[in-house]
Amino acid sequence: MFLTGTMKINAQGHLVIGGIDTLELVKEFGTPLWVVDEEGLRYNCRVLKEAFSRWGDAVVAYASKSLCNLAICRIAAQEGLALDVVSGGELFTALQAGFPAERILFHGNNKDPEEIRMALQAGVGRIIVDNFYELELLNSIAEEYGKNVDILLRITPGVEAHTHEYIQTGQIDSKFGFTLTDGQAMEGVKAAVYSPRLNLTGLHCHIGSQIFDMDPFRYTTALMMEFIAQIKEETAQEIAELDLGGGFGIFYASGDQPVDPEEWAEAVMTTVQEKARHYNLRVPRVIVEPGRAISGPAGVTLYTIGSFKEVSGIRKYIAVDGGMTDNIRTALYGAKYSAILANKADQEPVETVSVAGKCCESGDMLLWDVKLPRVESGDILAVFATGAYNYSMSSNYNRLPRPAMVLVNQGCADLILKRETYEDLLRNDLLPDRLKLE
Amino acid sequence: MFLTGTMKINAQGHLVIGGIDTLELVKEFGTPLWVVDEEGLRYNCRVLKEAFSRWGDAVVAYASKSLCNLAICRIAAQEGLALDVVSGGELFTALQAGFPAERILFHGNNKDPEEIRMALQAGVGRIIVDNFYELELLNSIAEEYGKNVDILLRITPGVEAHTHEYIQTGQIDSKFGFTLTDGQAMEGVKAAVYSPRLNLTGLHCHIGSQIFDMDPFRYTTALMMEFIAQIKEETAQEIAELDLGGGFGIFYASGDQPVDPEEWAEAVMTTVQEKARHYNLRVPRVIVEPGRAISGPAGVTLYTIGSFKEVSGIRKYIAVDGGMTDNIRTALYGAKYSAILANKADQEPVETVSVAGKCCESGDMLLWDVKLPRVESGDILAVFATGAYNYSMSSNYNRLPRPAMVLVNQGCADLILKRETYEDLLRNDLLPDRLKLE
Repeated sequence: MFLTGTMKINAQGHLVIGGIDTLELVKEFGTPLWVVDEEGLRYNCRVLKEAFSRWGDAVVAYASKSLCNLAICRIAAQEGLALDVVSGGELFTALQAGFPAERILFHGNNKDPEEIRMALQAGVGRIIVDNFYELELLNSIAEEYGKNVDILLRITPGVEAHTHEYIQTGQIDSKFGFTLTDGQAMEGVKAAVYSPRLNLTGLHCHIGSQIFDMDPFRYTTALMMEFIAQIKEETAQEIAELDLGGGFGIFYASGDQPVDPEEWAEAVMTTVQEKARHYNLRVPRVIVEPGRAISGPAGVTLYTIGSFKEVSGIRKYIAVDGGMTDNIRTALYGAKYSAILANKADQEPVETVSVAGKCCESGDMLLWDVKLPRVESGDILAVFATGAYNYSMSSNYNRLPRPAMVLVNQGCADLILKRETYEDLLRNDLLPDRLKLE
Repeated sequence: MFLTGTMKINAQGHLVIGGIDTLELVKEFGTPLWVVDEEGLRYNCRVLKEAFSRWGDAVVAYASKSLCNLAICRIAAQEGLALDVVSGGELFTALQAGFPAERILFHGNNKDPEEIRMALQAGVGRIIVDNFYELELLNSIAEEYGKNVDILLRITPGVEAHTHEYIQTGQIDSKFGFTLTDGQAMEGVKAAVYSPRLNLTGLHCHIGSQIFDMDPFRYTTALMMEFIAQIKEETAQEIAELDLGGGFGIFYASGDQPVDPEEWAEAVMTTVQEKARHYNLRVPRVIVEPGRAISGPAGVTLYTIGSFKEVSGIRKYIAVDGGMTDNIRTALYGAKYSAILANKADQEPVETVSVAGKCCESGDMLLWDVKLPRVESGDILAVFATGAYNYSMSSNYNRLPRPAMVLVNQGCADLILKRETYEDLLRNDLLPDRLKLE
């Protein structure tokens, strides 16, 4: 289940990705190493794009916050996706990668004036407006530039998808969006319609992450279509675009039951069409924003196993040369992962171990109670589905340099992110003259 | 309670740190901004040093993982502290800052061979050995260099200090150290004694973080002294040093009741002396490793308030221009903080708000339900006690550049960490030739 894309086990019992033995990758690039399976990533793009486009006019925007660098933005561009960015930094990266600005959607609950200026100058396709404050700010900056701006309004529909508390974003008590249930959303729509520089092309919502059940998507889509009907009734405004966000679940560990992207598309698109008929509306262009579903399964992290510790009768710890610095999701969300020994991938699991990181912090754990073949120091641990929210949330805690990232494809491995050096860590440090040592 | 060190409110009602109006800092350096009160930091160093040295031979080592850069390492050196580092990156920083290697203690549950070589070449004062694997590894690398190495053994005493689960490190089921209760610790001591290149000077333990109750310290100290007595009995080895780690609690928010450093020193030192008498032992040199207690209260983060969102009857959100990227402790540990409006520091609180960050993630919250004067966009929020584990755990999530850090003292503000730029974010990105856009 965790072997996706081009991943397989070769005759030597080694994990192979993109036609390359991972042990060769380790020799060339060291560990910890983020490996991205290019074909796997492109496949995820295509499957999602096809699943939605089959139903008519639909846009798949890659949520770059899940994994954003020059190479990944370039691939998303090549695959003809749109791009969801959430900051000036992501926008800057996308533009540097040559991503067409008109296919970029700019999100965020607190875009600052500089970021908005940057977006207007670049000519991004849509700005997703989060709140009344931003409506005003954006309108006034657009006025400065003498530009009209296509916007979506972020709506908080009050749907709670069942997933970890920290990664639910659709509930009413959220920092994001215009609340649907208390009339704020309609007020926002009217304010947008009356903003001279803003052109309300659509609505946006996002109900959570790592969702396996399609009912919340159906339910939310229906709610949003109902709201679109209400808007038409109250303002005569036809909403042309409906952005339903991301949240499509992937396989991390046993218990995760991802559905086929076609099921997601069908759930959403049939609801949109049915409700459009019901309310006599033009069928809006649907936008979806998968991030994890594209980048997650395409990423594998390789670590070298170092020290061991047995706690009699309780647990065997093994420690790797990375940790919460390159993957904070276990500590932050209690996330689960699957792993194998890349150099013993054909051997049966014989022991249960817990995988610790090397940070000086008890919470620095990567996996609890995972079954592996007999583990020895020097073995290479491969952790699957680390493409999303690993690099993007990475830190230099304990002043650990961040790992390198390689893009592998058909026997070719390209470095797309250089490993940080100790010198990199000090690059922005300054030592004032007055702090002299005797 | 949260105004520590040189912090005060001036006649204009502005927060002043190090003799500088924080609004001036904002004008010059922008936000988000990490401000370090140099006098406050030095005061924390001195108070701790004096509290312990009053009782005899004791070493206060600054735990650099709480806040590590050239300037802070330099100040710790100037204050005559020892330094606790946990990685090659921290060691590299300390050495670049001119920190005397012999006053450095090197920690970590999974030091790699390169890090150990670096430590031996630099001649660090002590290596704290975490497990059997490392004992062997260190001995063999020391053999390569023909050097004898002074080590402490990290012992897991099985004491659970009452604090957040993720930051407890003394319980038995921990990735760290030799377990005391199952005989592993004694076995470790014997293995160390028989390692030809290793000189066992002492023992180390660490029972948790943010501890206000001195009893766990007393109890642990007694346990460790008892173990030292046992070691003498079984091996005739006298343990010369006892490193009791850190964990001394500071004030973050109401409910936190930090005790005087002298109480910590007294609790530890009287227990050591009493037990030494009782077991007829030489009084070991005590080492303590405060990190947060030195850097935490000396740091303040300044943010500019941007957008707002009211959820009728539930909550008012205000959003700042930083978030979990510069302070992940709220999301990770449920940490609490105190805050004021730096530009309205003399005004009475009139509303309760929750402070959101700007990351595209619901969990990106900094403070829940904090009382502030009437908040307006453009106000400057000052969050207190952010000196520890804010910069050190910071990330570029959402590709947000990391803030600048200034050291303020007697009206002078020195940049000690440059603000990251968008170009910095792309510095290690590479775009393979084959990823051409048509």
